[in-house]
Amino acid sequence: MRDLLNCSAWWTLPTGPTNTICDIAGITVGNESLRGEGECSGVTAVLPHQDDLFARPVPAGIAVLNGFGKSAGLMQVEELGEIETPILLTNTFAVGTCSTALIRRAIAADPEIGRRKCTVNPVVLECNDGTVNDIQALAVTEDHANAAIAAAASRFDQGTVGAGSGMKTFGYAGGIGSSSRRVDLPGGAGFGLGALVLSNFGQQAALRVLGQQIPPPQGAGGGDPDKGSIIILLATDAPLCARQLTRVARRSAAALGRLGSHIGHQSGDIALAFSTANSVPRDSGDTFAATRLNESRMDTFFVAAVEAVEEAVLNALWHAVPQRGYDGSILPSFRERVAAYFAQ
Amino acid sequence: MRDLLNCSAWWTLPTGPTNTICDIAGITVGNESLRGEGECSGVTAVLPHQDDLFARPVPAGIAVLNGFGKSAGLMQVEELGEIETPILLTNTFAVGTCSTALIRRAIAADPEIGRRKCTVNPVVLECNDGTVNDIQALAVTEDHANAAIAAAASRFDQGTVGAGSGMKTFGYAGGIGSSSRRVDLPGGAGFGLGALVLSNFGQQAALRVLGQQIPPPQGAGGGDPDKGSIIILLATDAPLCARQLTRVARRSAAALGRLGSHIGHQSGDIALAFSTANSVPRDSGDTFAATRLNESRMDTFFVAAVEAVEEAVLNALWHAVPQRGYDGSILPSFRERVAAYFAQ
Amino acid sequence: MRDLLNCSAWWTLPTGPTNTICDIAGITVGNESLRGEGECSGVTAVLPHQDDLFARPVPAGIAVLNGFGKSAGLMQVEELGEIETPILLTNTFAVGTCSTALIRRAIAADPEIGRRKCTVNPVVLECNDGTVNDIQALAVTEDHANAAIAAAASRFDQGTVGAGSGMKTFGYAGGIGSSSRRVDLPGGAGFGLGALVLSNFGQQAALRVLGQQIPPPQGAGGGDPDKGSIIILLATDAPLCARQLTRVARRSAAALGRLGSHIGHQSGDIALAFSTANSVPRDSGDTFAATRLNESRMDTFFVAAVEAVEEAVLNALWHAVPQRGYDGSILPSFRERVAAYFAQ
Amino acid sequence: MRDLLNCSAWWTLPTGPTNTICDIAGITVGNESLRGEGECSGVTAVLPHQDDLFARPVPAGIAVLNGFGKSAGLMQVEELGEIETPILLTNTFAVGTCSTALIRRAIAADPEIGRRKCTVNPVVLECNDGTVNDIQALAVTEDHANAAIAAAASRFDQGTVGAGSGMKTFGYAGGIGSSSRRVDLPGGAGFGLGALVLSNFGQQAALRVLGQQIPPPQGAGGGDPDKGSIIILLATDAPLCARQLTRVARRSAAALGRLGSHIGHQSGDIALAFSTANSVPRDSGDTFAATRLNESRMDTFFVAAVEAVEEAVLNALWHAVPQRGYDGSILPSFRERVAAYFAQ
Repeated sequence: MRDLLNCSAWWTLPTGPTNTICDIAGITVGNESLRGEGECSGVTAVLPHQDDLFARPVPAGIAVLNGFGKSAGLMQVEELGEIETPILLTNTFAVGTCSTALIRRAIAADPEIGRRKCTVNPVVLECNDGTVNDIQALAVTEDHANAAIAAAASRFDQGTVGAGSGMKTFGYAGGIGSSSRRVDLPGGAGFGLGALVLSNFGQQAALRVLGQQIPPPQGAGGGDPDKGSIIILLATDAPLCARQLTRVARRSAAALGRLGSHIGHQSGDIALAFSTANSVPRDSGDTFAATRLNESRMDTFFVAAVEAVEEAVLNALWHAVPQRGYDGSILPSFRERVAAYFAQ
Repeated sequence: MRDLLNCSAWWTLPTGPTNTICDIAGITVGNESLRGEGECSGVTAVLPHQDDLFARPVPAGIAVLNGFGKSAGLMQVEELGEIETPILLTNTFAVGTCSTALIRRAIAADPEIGRRKCTVNPVVLECNDGTVNDIQALAVTEDHANAAIAAAASRFDQGTVGAGSGMKTFGYAGGIGSSSRRVDLPGGAGFGLGALVLSNFGQQAALRVLGQQIPPPQGAGGGDPDKGSIIILLATDAPLCARQLTRVARRSAAALGRLGSHIGHQSGDIALAFSTANSVPRDSGDTFAATRLNESRMDTFFVAAVEAVEEAVLNALWHAVPQRGYDGSILPSFRERVAAYFAQ
Repeated sequence: MRDLLNCSAWWTLPTGPTNTICDIAGITVGNESLRGEGECSGVTAVLPHQDDLFARPVPAGIAVLNGFGKSAGLMQVEELGEIETPILLTNTFAVGTCSTALIRRAIAADPEIGRRKCTVNPVVLECNDGTVNDIQALAVTEDHANAAIAAAASRFDQGTVGAGSGMKTFGYAGGIGSSSRRVDLPGGAGFGLGALVLSNFGQQAALRVLGQQIPPPQGAGGGDPDKGSIIILLATDAPLCARQLTRVARRSAAALGRLGSHIGHQSGDIALAFSTANSVPRDSGDTFAATRLNESRMDTFFVAAVEAVEEAVLNALWHAVPQRGYDGSILPSFRERVAAYFAQ
Repeated sequence: MRDLLNCSAWWTLPTGPTNTICDIAGITVGNESLRGEGECSGVTAVLPHQDDLFARPVPAGIAVLNGFGKSAGLMQVEELGEIETPILLTNTFAVGTCSTALIRRAIAADPEIGRRKCTVNPVVLECNDGTVNDIQALAVTEDHANAAIAAAASRFDQGTVGAGSGMKTFGYAGGIGSSSRRVDLPGGAGFGLGALVLSNFGQQAALRVLGQQIPPPQGAGGGDPDKGSIIILLATDAPLCARQLTRVARRSAAALGRLGSHIGHQSGDIALAFSTANSVPRDSGDTFAATRLNESRMDTFFVAAVEAVEEAVLNALWHAVPQRGYDGSILPSFRERVAAYFAQ
């Protein structure tokens, strides 16, 4: 995409080596895709680190840009400022099943959970892929959730894969996208910030690509209401606390605005930010030593979040392949549309 | 309980006819209890009215007193200010299963859900019954959830039944409790407010009953940390909007304080308030006519909420029967303890 | 501005007759500008209606996009969902003085305030004009606040006037801007939505005008951090409740994103939305009849908010005249820069 | 009070040496009382430490128990999690004047504030003393605010002094009260937690003193609505972050419940908690080293907060002297009433 579009003028910060969320050391991503009769769905797993997350949670904060959504686990993330399971993305009706899978996985690793120890808080986020997938079939199983976790690696596919298999973005096929930015601070410290989105939002006629309105393909309606949602994961290796991560997560709204969204009424637009720094063992004494980011250094993280989320959505579009909708209509390829538009 | 304790001085507002949440016309409650080998759990269903809730949602507001909990559906209730499914109470690890049951039930009633219509938001709240129940067995099924809904009636059992089967309150057996109050306004309008709790919180030594400290039974440890939670449902037939219902829900914290709780770190203490007034068909034109409560009339609802929640917890204690803990210990009877104490 | 720029493709909804917040019937705006030695500041008053606001509050909701700000009165707006004074905009250090002016004005109109009746909640919002104005002089007086209220009319100046006198936007002179949109609903009902901004935010190099990056003028630094703030007022004659108004206010973040902002760390970016419908006398009995907007009609209001806020900021820029900064530097004219750019 | 009442059974944690907020090292409190014709008001200043607070802010969190109040500065405390001025308590109509005083004081100490540096966020909290004080006279001046700060010391008067001069609590004279608790953690670390309240809330007939209902004095109405407010400051030397301090602040609601309050509709019940640990210079490089409290140690802080707030209110009552109301009625002495009651 960067070959076709003039990205270097539009964005200001350099990307990380792979331009994905896995530029943050330790993070892995896994996709499990369902493709059966009427099925076009899946699960995407994001692991903040490779240790036991229940034993060693990571700081986290969330921003609910619009709360018409059914994600699980966010209340406790807000209260405690941490995540203690892999993060699963899936379709709206599979949240319960994926939550149960995470519970079973945690119990298997630590048989005291829910007994002498507290219960575990599964974090599962979702969009509705009912345009393409027969969502009422409830086809996602606990095995699919476990397979996505098992598949997690530091390289992963984007577009119409995993939870993104049946997703629709600005009228095109959408799905999983990712991007990253370098954050270099005035005092010499250097960090990274990565984004991964499950993108399922936007009206075709409203899309802006780097500020440019791309007219819908001929014959397209373009008039659908903005019914969909977007799940946004943000990760950094900088030592942000939960409050600071919440501030970063809230900047996602600016990225959606740049893309042309008005953050639709029926959307579950959720941003979840976490840090791989300051992940400490759950019981580490009365107090523990931590490193904190100086609040005055937040601005570069905010710019990084806006840019990485914007590019992650465009990457989801770019890598998606056309899908046949549940009603027979076709979700076209964004890549082809953009190429044709700029070839004019 | 009111025979034994001097309630009429402690509380100021009159109760409704049954002193339960069902004093609000249209509300029904159903319990499904699991009692097998190691099993002591269940589901309690609360139906705000007897029509299709997805077609005719009710206004609702929530207060998260402490967010160490795993309840489902609250984010959307906050965004839209309404509930569109029966409310299910269950154990912590059964939230996913009960959510899926509510989704299937909604789809069966309206096959457009998730396709042409938006998805449905299941509301499921929970406490951890792992002291008594083998919670890791994940014994609650979708059938149990459906059975609780099917059992819903305007009379229901309290104590160690339904979701309350294995719950522990201030060191005693606890569970489901309910109470109600009359709210008579200066202008002559009369309404009711009812509470139903799933009570699973409190340290034995901290308990206050109508201001009186009840020492733990001989031999009791009493030193357990306050690890549990409480789910509080509040209902009224007064025309409160979602914002006003949120204000009512927040008063639950004062009731917990009266009972001796400090709202423990590991608690998921959640209050959900709804109104049976102004329940309107989902698509009723551009605008609709509604009745609103004058904000200056809120105080009596606040008093009613504090009193009804306090009495509902005491009723849960009063009706509970002793349970054998998963580790062999006994959760004693509060009723016997109180009777013995006042007989001294 | 609309002559120069291709606005009709970028925005989708029609404007109201004056393309200002005063397209909502009953709203008036008044500016009082201070221009003395080192002084370049002022007060802008917005009156939601022409009756006594304490006797007849209007429904309102707020969104804190970033809370590095010193506005007064927002906590009570969140609790009660209403505004009961004129809304004053001014510089950061004048909030206390303007609050006191609103208190004195309310007492003069109703001598029971703070005695038999409750106290009054002054709403004052602010940006820091310290780049241009000698803000430490605290030159704004209660008389200036009263003068702005007295000057309120249905036509008003935009740009570097009133509270906007010394404001800076994307490195240019900024200040007060306004715009409006028509909202026509599927059921045939028609409403309006207006925006008024006090604009004092953004980095020059980050500015996007209708998606187009406008390079900073030659010689400009452009590298300033995004230290400023924006106050956004939104008004509608549609019967939105406080919760719905909050939802509208939150969409302002998308408009800031379109303009190139990342919502800076040091910003007090606050959106306050109110409705002129359902303004009822404070004591109107136990209940009252109200009209409510069907939630499913919210999307057009969201689009209107994004468009009106974006255009209001551009109008603030367009109408501003160059200012000399407190340090001698010049805040240039956006209008001239844009004209020169497009003449290339 | 502890001589008269059986406090050692009711409360579980030991107090600090002075049983005031000043048991937290470095904190000072100053009162300035106004007693003129019709005047009965004042200012109370709380200084978290003795250095320049703008240069060295302290971590802080807030809980709005009910938002019918006019306090200044809370939005920025929520965003940044810190306090950067002394905390002033005063009457409702004096918030603007006290805010301006704090601004002038900060500018005098650092002439870059509002120019090269950001603006300063004055924190001023209030209750309405209009029952006793001629609040409409707006008698509090900036000089009074400065005098309260100048008077700050590690010993201070309680009761009807400073901001508490004209306050009313459960129908009695009320005002400033304080208390503290020791917090000893399982790992051997020891900390303190102190509370200071400006108490102006509660209905006389609803009062509970250590669980005991104290009937109103003969001839008292007791039927006033709960119109007042309470401001609650909590301080600790334990290294709690802003999120943890917010959690502590929220526990104040349980203390109000124990005292008999239902948290009235017209109340501005605000709790603000801060820590004297981890106060770091504003610009201390990209990152800094901090100590953090293990989240699992929070419960004892919650108990300490509930107990200290409850006792602080009783201390405010205990130390208050009778006041003549603005309408000629008398606010009686709680101490005399309690002594008489227990002498029966």
